[in-house]
Amino acid sequence: MNADRPVRFLVLADGHFGPMSSKTANACIRYSPERVVGVWDAAHAGRTAEDVLGFGGGIPVVATLEEGLALGPTAVLVGIAPAGGQLPQPWRDTLAAAARRGLDVWSGLHYFLSDDPLIADAAAEGGATIHDLRRPPADLGVSAGRVRGVDATVILTVGSDCNIGKMTTQLQLRDAMRARGQRVAFAATGQTGILVEGWGIGVDAVVADFIGGAAERLTLEGAEKGDIVLVEGQGSIIHPSYSGVTYGLLHGSLPHAMVLCHQPSRTAIAKQEWVPIPPLADLVRLHEQVAAPLRPAPVIAIALNTFDLSDEDARAAIAAAERETGLPATDPVRYDPAPLIDAITAFHEGRRATATA
Amino acid sequence: MNADRPVRFLVLADGHFGPMSSKTANACIRYSPERVVGVWDAAHAGRTAEDVLGFGGGIPVVATLEEGLALGPTAVLVGIAPAGGQLPQPWRDTLAAAARRGLDVWSGLHYFLSDDPLIADAAAEGGATIHDLRRPPADLGVSAGRVRGVDATVILTVGSDCNIGKMTTQLQLRDAMRARGQRVAFAATGQTGILVEGWGIGVDAVVADFIGGAAERLTLEGAEKGDIVLVEGQGSIIHPSYSGVTYGLLHGSLPHAMVLCHQPSRTAIAKQEWVPIPPLADLVRLHEQVAAPLRPAPVIAIALNTFDLSDEDARAAIAAAERETGLPATDPVRYDPAPLIDAITAFHEGRRATATA
Repeated sequence: MNADRPVRFLVLADGHFGPMSSKTANACIRYSPERVVGVWDAAHAGRTAEDVLGFGGGIPVVATLEEGLALGPTAVLVGIAPAGGQLPQPWRDTLAAAARRGLDVWSGLHYFLSDDPLIADAAAEGGATIHDLRRPPADLGVSAGRVRGVDATVILTVGSDCNIGKMTTQLQLRDAMRARGQRVAFAATGQTGILVEGWGIGVDAVVADFIGGAAERLTLEGAEKGDIVLVEGQGSIIHPSYSGVTYGLLHGSLPHAMVLCHQPSRTAIAKQEWVPIPPLADLVRLHEQVAAPLRPAPVIAIALNTFDLSDEDARAAIAAAERETGLPATDPVRYDPAPLIDAITAFHEGRRATATA
Repeated sequence: MNADRPVRFLVLADGHFGPMSSKTANACIRYSPERVVGVWDAAHAGRTAEDVLGFGGGIPVVATLEEGLALGPTAVLVGIAPAGGQLPQPWRDTLAAAARRGLDVWSGLHYFLSDDPLIADAAAEGGATIHDLRRPPADLGVSAGRVRGVDATVILTVGSDCNIGKMTTQLQLRDAMRARGQRVAFAATGQTGILVEGWGIGVDAVVADFIGGAAERLTLEGAEKGDIVLVEGQGSIIHPSYSGVTYGLLHGSLPHAMVLCHQPSRTAIAKQEWVPIPPLADLVRLHEQVAAPLRPAPVIAIALNTFDLSDEDARAAIAAAERETGLPATDPVRYDPAPLIDAITAFHEGRRATATA
């Protein structure tokens, strides 16, 4: 995963490039823009990543694979993650064409490209390597509370929905805390986080019985790398499709504390509008209730995703979240993440003081 | 799975045959004893299933594979499910030997026997078929609340721990309710339930993202087969290893009501004693709280597993559970399951009355 030669990605997002629709592409552009030579999406051809996303600088968006190849990529990255993980036939053809021309293929889909004869044969022909970021380790077992012995402080992001900022919050915290000189590890649990950080396990792709085991292994590994482990959350405890992964991750990683992520403009689960999102204070309480039987863990801060609000509305939403929950809140992408970092640091130092008292 | 020719199992449980240690073997013996010709466990050789389990009549326990083969089985059944699902080498050798002699092999392990070259080659040589009960359907997707549209009443068993009676309770209810003339379906979610009922999906063996999707499919299929769907629960919402599966099953099947299963003598999660089991009333409340954001569902009855208590102590435990929770309770194996059936039937009729009002 840690490529020895520099990787230059052409990101495939045709028909899907946008702030809320191409999560893998966007995280790669935000956290490692130097590795992206271009994005393929005919709908936005001629614009830049910055034009479309609001970040990413002058990375060009192109209309065709040929135009993209002219930018000199060493690899193509599947920049979208459709629900269910199936791969449309035109994408299979495109990926096979790229692999046949020697470009490595990186994918975070459930559908493993290296198991697809069309793409695998093309890669063999072109001398290309296929990186299936979601392929789990072969030797996972069940979780058994092994993380209870680690000294590191484990912080898990949880959320009111999917695709709401659980990974982004941790990456913003990682960068800002490292800039402060803190020894933090980011434990990636999804294909995009793995792509950005270079290690991790896609917990949603393991055998269901082993979700907790994957979370436990990640947390133990993170505890060797940092004094504070920022575990990337997944899904939501109220999500009708993904709650199993969310709970397995919670009970396998056994966080000492949680940061709750929410998008103020969202009032129901995306694409599952029959599930309203409860008030923030209720969500805080529910998270603490379901964690408590294994290891009591408070929610210590709120991370808001206000990308679709005016500055004034964003600041009002942050103030409202603080008022409703009694916890520090901010949008760690749009504003200084200091309120979240201060909450985590104070919690960590409180734990250490208790441990040595 | 619905064998056309009658199956006669030799159950392999060497070293593990016992009331609490050979769940698959025991369920097969309890619910389809006519299909079991013998059990292999050298430690209990010369005794009967009834001697060891307290049920199963004269099914003999034998000391060696050869003795077992002399009983005329058509298949061997792996009667145990070790944590993590790995298969010890002596078992591989035994299964290969049986398959080479033409006996079909049935297994509910995570480790798929048909992917094991040693056993697969032996089966090919002997003309035997391998049934991996846990192999999931290839076309699962994520759950999306599709069960909300069904008329059938969905009842899920939940539990304070694993291996505590969630499947057994549903099977006892299935039989007793069918005897009353009620049209009920049993939706099997684990290898043993599938073995007994002939259909189902082992939800703990699917890709983690698809736990809910598997639960949803099962519930929809159950709703075609019965007016009341008895969904087999898995794990526990407080189990450090398996809670992800439990929640995925809960939020995928979206039960209308739950039956909480508990063993009064158990005060902590088995093999994870650092997790105490909360008081029953707290467990009832926690289940209702985590179900509520998707579809409010009450716990309507308590099923106790009192196999290790005297009759007097069992009756006292049942009375205590009723007092603590305000709900009807019984041990549906040891005593008449009527209190549970009455609670489910009244709930079902209440739903129907509301729907037609």
